[in-house]
Amino acid sequence: MTTQPKARKTSVTVLGLGSMGQALAGAFLRAGHPTTVWNRSPEKGEELVSQGATLAATPGDAVRAGELVVICVIDYDSAYAVLEPVDTADFGGRLLVNVATSTSERSREFGDWAAKHKIDYLDGAIMIGPNFIDTPDSLVFLAGSRTGYETHRAVFDALGGRVRYVGEDPGFAALYDMSLLDFLWTSMSGMMHAFALAGSDGVKASDFAPYLDVMLDTVRMLAPDTAREIDEGAYPGGGELLTMRCSNVDDIIRAAELRGVDTAVLRAVASVEHRAKALGHRGATSSYTATYEAVRRGRATE
Amino acid sequence: MTTQPKARKTSVTVLGLGSMGQALAGAFLRAGHPTTVWNRSPEKGEELVSQGATLAATPGDAVRAGELVVICVIDYDSAYAVLEPVDTADFGGRLLVNVATSTSERSREFGDWAAKHKIDYLDGAIMIGPNFIDTPDSLVFLAGSRTGYETHRAVFDALGGRVRYVGEDPGFAALYDMSLLDFLWTSMSGMMHAFALAGSDGVKASDFAPYLDVMLDTVRMLAPDTAREIDEGAYPGGGELLTMRCSNVDDIIRAAELRGVDTAVLRAVASVEHRAKALGHRGATSSYTATYEAVRRGRATE
Ligand SMILES: NC(=O)c1ccc[n+]([C@@H]2O[C@H](COP(=O)([O-])OP(=O)(O)OC[C@H]3O[C@@H](n4cnc5c(N)ncnc54)[C@H](OP(=O)(O)O)[C@@H]3O)[C@@H](O)[C@H]2O)c1
Ligand SMILES: NC(=O)c1ccc[n+]([C@@H]2O[C@H](COP(=O)([O-])OP(=O)(O)OC[C@H]3O[C@@H](n4cnc5c(N)ncnc54)[C@H](OP(=O)(O)O)[C@@H]3O)[C@@H](O)[C@H]2O)c1
Repeated sequence: MTTQPKARKTSVTVLGLGSMGQALAGAFLRAGHPTTVWNRSPEKGEELVSQGATLAATPGDAVRAGELVVICVIDYDSAYAVLEPVDTADFGGRLLVNVATSTSERSREFGDWAAKHKIDYLDGAIMIGPNFIDTPDSLVFLAGSRTGYETHRAVFDALGGRVRYVGEDPGFAALYDMSLLDFLWTSMSGMMHAFALAGSDGVKASDFAPYLDVMLDTVRMLAPDTAREIDEGAYPGGGELLTMRCSNVDDIIRAAELRGVDTAVLRAVASVEHRAKALGHRGATSSYTATYEAVRRGRATE
Repeated sequence: MTTQPKARKTSVTVLGLGSMGQALAGAFLRAGHPTTVWNRSPEKGEELVSQGATLAATPGDAVRAGELVVICVIDYDSAYAVLEPVDTADFGGRLLVNVATSTSERSREFGDWAAKHKIDYLDGAIMIGPNFIDTPDSLVFLAGSRTGYETHRAVFDALGGRVRYVGEDPGFAALYDMSLLDFLWTSMSGMMHAFALAGSDGVKASDFAPYLDVMLDTVRMLAPDTAREIDEGAYPGGGELLTMRCSNVDDIIRAAELRGVDTAVLRAVASVEHRAKALGHRGATSSYTATYEAVRRGRATE
């Protein structure tokens, strides 16, 4: 092996030092990047300065100090508030990465704003809490400038195990984020409902909870095949599973009603299943994954 | 070690040889139990007979042959149809186990029927497919006669890794079953919706699917603490998570609407979250798990 000259480390700026911004800046520092930080309330930078960061007096100073500029404030309105006063010429040759949580729509707007000012832009979505930054369980989606991502991919490694570039559409990081949270909140709601249904007859939540794992494993096992069927647009099978599921969901709804437990989510689940079954009966689709067709087209479009 | 005399194996009867009944009978045979089988269409017993089972000509003959009598027909109406013609005296000294899928209500009715005829009764719920019987991933709930269960627990070991006695109420096996499926169908619906939301902007389901694991891990991680909070009836915390979640769900609903994707399930999820938030604002509860309170009391009871 030949010894390589130690690569010069890319300078990084982090604007916004809430709990997430502090975690990001700390990770860049630990990876050896010259790191400049700024926060509206400057005291939140003190700890990072003691770890070697440079505190900038203004967002403009901060932007000029970094080749990679990460903004991590609470939302996109705050990001505009921080960045609009900065001279757009200061962004020359730099990559801007906005990792505040947003929707695809807001991220695309922000991408348009950046394009208008000729700012190279990546939109980010952070799927884990600050404690998971710089761990193998980290998950960060990036979307937008491909060259920006390619240039700085080694820097993003500082953020942990899974930093994923998902496409040139700056709305895609937020789209992955929203879609995953869609699944998470719906599942969590289902979990609460399961606890409530069992609990209404006196089953302790902690006696019931261990068995949820079996269902989580089932979802995990079904996901890849379901995805393949969706991508192929073909849902083979006899439809028995869908029919079985419809009557099973109806049974659970009646059981919940009997116990005075809320049925709003389950009734909505059933409405989708029954529409899928109806689509199947019209010959369009026939299996489990047929639900996808009912979900994809809202009620209105039928 | 002293050598024990080989224990005499309990004789077992299986009524109903659909795909699940065949799997159960096969497992009892492999474990060395003298096994008698019966099915309305007798040809489904042929394979089992070749493996050593005895085919009974009538349900009564079958019942008399086994100390443990398992019935596994399609539903409870069929179970009554099979068992009502049998002389109830034939059940003397035997344990009856009905493992057809049911609701708590139907299982309790069946328990009442058994009690009326002085039949020792366990109600069962099988949570896995026939291929998982007699594997470590098996999961079977049993509820009802505690002495029946204690007497025969070694026989139930033949059914695989996890046979769980969940209480004396004969409705509890079905209650665990319904509550787990409640969670499963709701989660699956959320998964379909996530695929549809991402897919409507062109993200391939198979590109998106691998990330669902992160959310499944999150649910798995949250379950024990959530269960503990529910059992303690105290949901500490500042309510920020709930507030954040409400606005996040609202964002996802708007994103789905923009794309013509169904919003029924998400709107129901949101309605529960917002009611939980309202309960929190009234000072009753304040954290994440507060959703439980909104679920537990349906809309009507507020
Ligand atoms: N924490 C997490 O678990 C997590 C996980 C995934 C994604 N995220 C996302 O990461 C982003 C930051 O979250 P966080 O947890 O770090 O939030 P936080 O701890 O509440 O900090 C909020 C940050 O935004 C700044 N800010 C708010 N309004 C501002 C304005 N008008 N002008 C300038 N700065 C403003 C705050 O500055 P001051 O200090 O001056 O108030 C602070 O730096 C959010 O979009 C969040 O959704 C967080
Ligand atoms: N298979 C699974 O993955 C699975 C998983 C969990 C729970 N279960 C539950 O296990 C039970 C049996 O399911 P399975 O998969 O074995 O069903 P299956 O393969 O469709 O077999 C149905 C069985 O019920 C019998 N049967 C139906 N109506 C009857 C009647 N009126 N009188 C007498 N026998 C009647 C059938 O007899 P014939 O052969 O004469 O028609 C057959 O033995 C169901 O309650 C099911 O929900 C199944």
